[in-house]
Amino acid sequence: MNNQITVIAFDADDTLWVNEPYFREVEEQFAALLADFLPRDNIIAALYKTEIANLPLYGYGIKGFMLSMIEAVLRITEGKADPAIVQKVIDLGQEMLDKPVELLDGVEDVLKALHGKFRLVVATKGDLLDQQRKLSKSGLDHYFHHIEVMSDKQEQDYQKLIRHLDCKPAEFLMLGNSLKSDVLPVLAIGGNAVHIPFHTTWVHEHIDYTIEHPNFYQMENLSEVLLKLIK
Amino acid sequence: MNNQITVIAFDADDTLWVNEPYFREVEEQFAALLADFLPRDNIIAALYKTEIANLPLYGYGIKGFMLSMIEAVLRITEGKADPAIVQKVIDLGQEMLDKPVELLDGVEDVLKALHGKFRLVVATKGDLLDQQRKLSKSGLDHYFHHIEVMSDKQEQDYQKLIRHLDCKPAEFLMLGNSLKSDVLPVLAIGGNAVHIPFHTTWVHEHIDYTIEHPNFYQMENLSEVLLKLIK
Repeated sequence: MNNQITVIAFDADDTLWVNEPYFREVEEQFAALLADFLPRDNIIAALYKTEIANLPLYGYGIKGFMLSMIEAVLRITEGKADPAIVQKVIDLGQEMLDKPVELLDGVEDVLKALHGKFRLVVATKGDLLDQQRKLSKSGLDHYFHHIEVMSDKQEQDYQKLIRHLDCKPAEFLMLGNSLKSDVLPVLAIGGNAVHIPFHTTWVHEHIDYTIEHPNFYQMENLSEVLLKLIK
Repeated sequence: MNNQITVIAFDADDTLWVNEPYFREVEEQFAALLADFLPRDNIIAALYKTEIANLPLYGYGIKGFMLSMIEAVLRITEGKADPAIVQKVIDLGQEMLDKPVELLDGVEDVLKALHGKFRLVVATKGDLLDQQRKLSKSGLDHYFHHIEVMSDKQEQDYQKLIRHLDCKPAEFLMLGNSLKSDVLPVLAIGGNAVHIPFHTTWVHEHIDYTIEHPNFYQMENLSEVLLKLIK
């Protein structure tokens, strides 16, 4: 791997800790709440459509997801929703915000090994307070220089991050589970990227082609990073 | 004023642009929606209570405000809400997120005069995407080194900000409309603070005593800052 790397940025959700399965679980509970109105698949599709429509306004994160679920309830029930369903959706979202953090395998060992040798940061989308709280709950915060909560992960967002970190793109390595958000934009601006897939990925993050690039590394798990980075 | 100052951080809402009156307007519209259920003052009080209870979970910003309004609808109507009221609350919140930015008097002149002489940053609470969008809509972004969206403005949050800015507390000046959020915690960690009151302040930001401190400056408007800082 490129030996100029000085800064390693870790995606958080589904790279450091479990996240997407919680959204999928809540989606199923959401569909169950509305089972009298529409078949499950149509409910999930209607919710997804609402989420995507609201993304420019709300950004990523649980609060926007809650608001989109509530809006979808009103749409799916055509204004005939029992208010108890809306309350149930608020409860589901508040439980998500209050969930314990479940670290992925090997995360702490990898951070321990890299700490002191590289500047480590967290680079994540989502709600600011929610991501800060998860990092604090994870007990991993002392490994990181800081957490950067990004409103999006497009090329210009990474350019801003790298400027902020005061490093060159070639010195920057991004590590995450989303080819679309953690890999492609980073390669495009001259950075390095490692993809570590997670078993569950939101359909919005899917891409359907393979990447070949000299600065790109496909790995099975986080521990492989050590073999490449620490000689 | 302390001539060691190198970094000036501006609060955003009600310091650079109008914010609080929009919340107050929406509160009145919210109370009107529920006028059949409770008197106006009780509705406003119930909403405030819900907001404060949710603050640790949601943090500051419009999305949390929307969720608290929806929760308050369910509580105030005791589960008998017409779903159309919930839809109306979502519409009110989405309009807030989409509002044009209205700069306060003199802001641009002050930034122009300070730009290049000090490192200028925005230090604000609220939703990440919403605050970034407002800064971008304001047309002021080129004056600022960056925007720091903070989940809270307590002493430890400012300590983190100052560490991040790589400056000493004595070199840091915070400028804002809230004594509680923009002044007291900054003075407590050895920084400098300017208070510029705005005619409308959220009750949560009120304090009821006067401040006397060598690093504290009370001003009537932003332009006074120039007289103190630029010789």
